[in-house]
Amino acid sequence: MSVPKILCVGALTMDTIYRLDKLPDGPGKFIPLDAVEVAEGMAAAQAASIVRLGGASVFWANRGDDATGQRLVDQIAAEGVDCSHVRLRKECQSAISTIFMDRAGERTIVPYYDPRLMAAPESLPDLDFAELGAVMVDVRWPEAAELALKEAQRVGIPGILDADVAQIDVLERLMPLASHVVASEPAARQFTDADTTVDAVMALADWHAGFVAVTSGEDGCRWFNRKTNSLRHTHAVKVDAVDTLAAGDVFHAGFAAALVEGQSEEAAIRFASAAAALKCSRFGGRLGCPTRAELVEQGFPPAPAN
Amino acid sequence: MSVPKILCVGALTMDTIYRLDKLPDGPGKFIPLDAVEVAEGMAAAQAASIVRLGGASVFWANRGDDATGQRLVDQIAAEGVDCSHVRLRKECQSAISTIFMDRAGERTIVPYYDPRLMAAPESLPDLDFAELGAVMVDVRWPEAAELALKEAQRVGIPGILDADVAQIDVLERLMPLASHVVASEPAARQFTDADTTVDAVMALADWHAGFVAVTSGEDGCRWFNRKTNSLRHTHAVKVDAVDTLAAGDVFHAGFAAALVEGQSEEAAIRFASAAAALKCSRFGGRLGCPTRAELVEQGFPPAPAN
Repeated sequence: MSVPKILCVGALTMDTIYRLDKLPDGPGKFIPLDAVEVAEGMAAAQAASIVRLGGASVFWANRGDDATGQRLVDQIAAEGVDCSHVRLRKECQSAISTIFMDRAGERTIVPYYDPRLMAAPESLPDLDFAELGAVMVDVRWPEAAELALKEAQRVGIPGILDADVAQIDVLERLMPLASHVVASEPAARQFTDADTTVDAVMALADWHAGFVAVTSGEDGCRWFNRKTNSLRHTHAVKVDAVDTLAAGDVFHAGFAAALVEGQSEEAAIRFASAAAALKCSRFGGRLGCPTRAELVEQGFPPAPAN
Repeated sequence: MSVPKILCVGALTMDTIYRLDKLPDGPGKFIPLDAVEVAEGMAAAQAASIVRLGGASVFWANRGDDATGQRLVDQIAAEGVDCSHVRLRKECQSAISTIFMDRAGERTIVPYYDPRLMAAPESLPDLDFAELGAVMVDVRWPEAAELALKEAQRVGIPGILDADVAQIDVLERLMPLASHVVASEPAARQFTDADTTVDAVMALADWHAGFVAVTSGEDGCRWFNRKTNSLRHTHAVKVDAVDTLAAGDVFHAGFAAALVEGQSEEAAIRFASAAAALKCSRFGGRLGCPTRAELVEQGFPPAPAN
């Protein structure tokens, strides 16, 4: 393996995604156009997408003690992710989620988490962190994210936080531990109480000494360039979006993979934007993540050779 | 085995049932109180419930060529149902369905059927129909239902039709082949174009020479007694309903099981009503079906001895 692995920490859920003409709006029977079941959740989608995009990943998450738990791990492992550290929680149900999606991309999401599934971990997984390329965490398993980011800091590898909407104290706890914060626009605005996205990026860059970026879907990604001390805006690649589910995860995966390859922050964001745009053009959540070959076709560099 | 098996023909779907404070009414994220995944569909729920209620059953249905298909069969077989005749459909997805249920029992249902899953069967399953106690069919696999009801007629065993809402031509095709028609109120009213349930039962009894009954949930079951040439109304057992999903299937299962034991039609409907009422008091679709022991506690006769 030429590139070191990225440890992804956080959510693992079995999503059933139904595509419908219109979203259900109350009682009744609604016939979908299409349906697909896919193992995802932020960290899981990121781990799987990193591999598609030419990187390598190892996954730390929780599965239940049920048939769904086995399928979750099987599906993510089949993508080439090292799932040997996924924690099996006895007498817990695996996380599941139903997602309805209409033709305009509007979504109804009903996620179910067994309350005992995400209990704090006893210790870090048995991994040599100094040999990892980076750690990337989401906000769904805060105690594990905290441990992993601290260890990344200690051994001197990037610690990337996918700062999505969460309780403020979770973001307050995790952000200072991360070298790179890539936040969704709603989370950044909520956290900074800013009126505009630009204000939110500036407030984050003020609050946090490392790399900060805020993603705004089709409005692109705003980030703070420490070298030039200036706000940058990388525009999104235009695409006919049919499914934006997991687009953020593909973005994070592209960013982390490129960073670990040694690409610049700017190049990493361009790579991430192109990967996320391609994903949006395809139905099926993270299954729409493109391969590295597709990005090479668009002019991006090939993955580092073995 | 003291009682002969009942062949159940029709639906097999993996239902994910979410219990929510209120039903989703558009885009957004909705957090459920509880969630459970259960193999059901009308015929599957009937086959499983027949066993719980003291009978024996064999199941003829379609599963897809996927992990869900295996779990569907595993779950129904674990209830003691003979699943050796379930047809595996190559390159098809198994049927799945998401059900949202609020505290008042209102439901949003989104079922997905692979269009190729329910193709007509080539032939009857390799079973000696003369040794069966009865055939019970739903409306979801009409070609198979037709074959099975015709064979039941030929060998002289009861052929029971669960007449739920379906295309009129399906009901027109299957009803004359059944010795017993147990219809839901919406299906009976739709089929007969009657203004009241009483009119619907009378119209069905006119149209069909065998046994006819119409179930109306908490309003009980109306049926036509051929011996006395009169309409009968068996009241539902009062219960604090928390989940009426699969209550109709438990009713059909109880009716068929009691009939095959040699109970009278009236006794069979009382038994079915009591079983369905207990089911309604428990969350989890067909998983709420009571055992025979629970019905014996309520004063019903034990299952025939070995």
